[in-house]
Amino acid sequence: MLASDIQTQATMCQLLGMNCNVPTDICFSFEGFCARGGKTDEHRDGWGIAFFEGLGCRTFIDVKPSIASPIAELIKNYPIHSTNVIAHIRKATQGEIKLENCHPFRRELWGKYWVFAHNGNLENFSPAAGDFYQPVGDTDSEKAFCLILNTLRETFPQGKPSLEQLYQVLKTITNSIACQGIFNYLLSDGEHFFAHCSTKLSYIIRQYPFAAAHLIDEDVSVDFQALARPGDQVAIIATTPLTDNEVWTTINSGELLVFQQGAAILS
Amino acid sequence: MLASDIQTQATMCQLLGMNCNVPTDICFSFEGFCARGGKTDEHRDGWGIAFFEGLGCRTFIDVKPSIASPIAELIKNYPIHSTNVIAHIRKATQGEIKLENCHPFRRELWGKYWVFAHNGNLENFSPAAGDFYQPVGDTDSEKAFCLILNTLRETFPQGKPSLEQLYQVLKTITNSIACQGIFNYLLSDGEHFFAHCSTKLSYIIRQYPFAAAHLIDEDVSVDFQALARPGDQVAIIATTPLTDNEVWTTINSGELLVFQQGAAILS
Repeated sequence: MLASDIQTQATMCQLLGMNCNVPTDICFSFEGFCARGGKTDEHRDGWGIAFFEGLGCRTFIDVKPSIASPIAELIKNYPIHSTNVIAHIRKATQGEIKLENCHPFRRELWGKYWVFAHNGNLENFSPAAGDFYQPVGDTDSEKAFCLILNTLRETFPQGKPSLEQLYQVLKTITNSIACQGIFNYLLSDGEHFFAHCSTKLSYIIRQYPFAAAHLIDEDVSVDFQALARPGDQVAIIATTPLTDNEVWTTINSGELLVFQQGAAILS
Repeated sequence: MLASDIQTQATMCQLLGMNCNVPTDICFSFEGFCARGGKTDEHRDGWGIAFFEGLGCRTFIDVKPSIASPIAELIKNYPIHSTNVIAHIRKATQGEIKLENCHPFRRELWGKYWVFAHNGNLENFSPAAGDFYQPVGDTDSEKAFCLILNTLRETFPQGKPSLEQLYQVLKTITNSIACQGIFNYLLSDGEHFFAHCSTKLSYIIRQYPFAAAHLIDEDVSVDFQALARPGDQVAIIATTPLTDNEVWTTINSGELLVFQQGAAILS
């Protein structure tokens, strides 16, 4: 990759995800992530976050930069306990700064909500219209999400298949989309959490014995030992590490990981 | 209707909607409506509100009573300018108090978001599973919404038809669902706003010359003359009137109204 490419990619969107075995709030990670939306980085073109709570799912989106958004301020201070979270701060590449272009996107498939956020850029990406899902906005990201869901639905019309079957089809369509450009994404139905790395994505799993963590983007620490119980397990996935005193694992380019209950279970 | 039936109906959910010709905030109406979620009335089992902004749509839902919800507090104080709004406070009849059972519900149809909220109760309502949309939660309301969207999609597979064609099909499926119980609802795709009255629904259209309005549920007044411009037109639709110094129009039982640009255009 050329230096100019790295620069281009560094100015794209950023992703943050969480998957855990007990409902957990994301206030600490979101605070650091949020600072990248205009304070420590330049992702000022809107942001969004989705929380799964049981079968339910609520999404908060805003076209304001996350550091200036009253809704982001609420999310930082109002602990929502969730097992699967997907957040996104946007640096627009395709599609204007409009609400319909804010990630994460959500659709219902097989009677469950599916949520998707993308970091990257798919050049000249014009998939054929599918039978079920159509984009509302005009981003490459929502087109890719609709293509993924259309493919899953057409392949498995009866309902969600086994994880292994689902993974194979998702991997194939992901690889084909990734040929069009940079395609880092997070995807979840509240049961499984998929993380695809095209160029840049890392994760950390926090489990017993817990330690203290310190944010890179804000001078804030948290002592998880005081907050977590021995059996708790939390996976945090982010475009770049959020803390400077923990060891994050870099996901390989082309790798599609599946997390469940706070653990990476398939790759 | 027997006195006991009236009592039963009075304790169900409540609806609030807005349709207007210029993006307008709903802070004033929402403040009065919100009080009914545990202060002036007993609709304590969650609440929600959806805002259309251009093609985009954002929904805020919470299982907490609206009078005790930090998210409702944000909505009361953060003016979101929208042309179509649907809000709901819940008194659970079917389905537990869980996030997936909070109204409004949202799906994508023909590349646009559709939002739906229901006041009433459909006894023994078990429509056959449709080809496209499935409920995520277990309310009669979400089943009815999915049945409506499945019917529209099957009837018009090519995309949104003329309003007249859409209205006829929506009226037919609405009448057939309304045979199962009480079915007051609000439905919008951000372009048209549909309001169906089964037992209780009223509306008011605010336009030039604007006057002051005073809430029933909170001692709050607003002078629209100071806020609105001569061409502005705003329709507010609610289960029961929100103000005590304006004349609200009661929608007839069995009537399906369509609002656009702040005016009732079809019934």
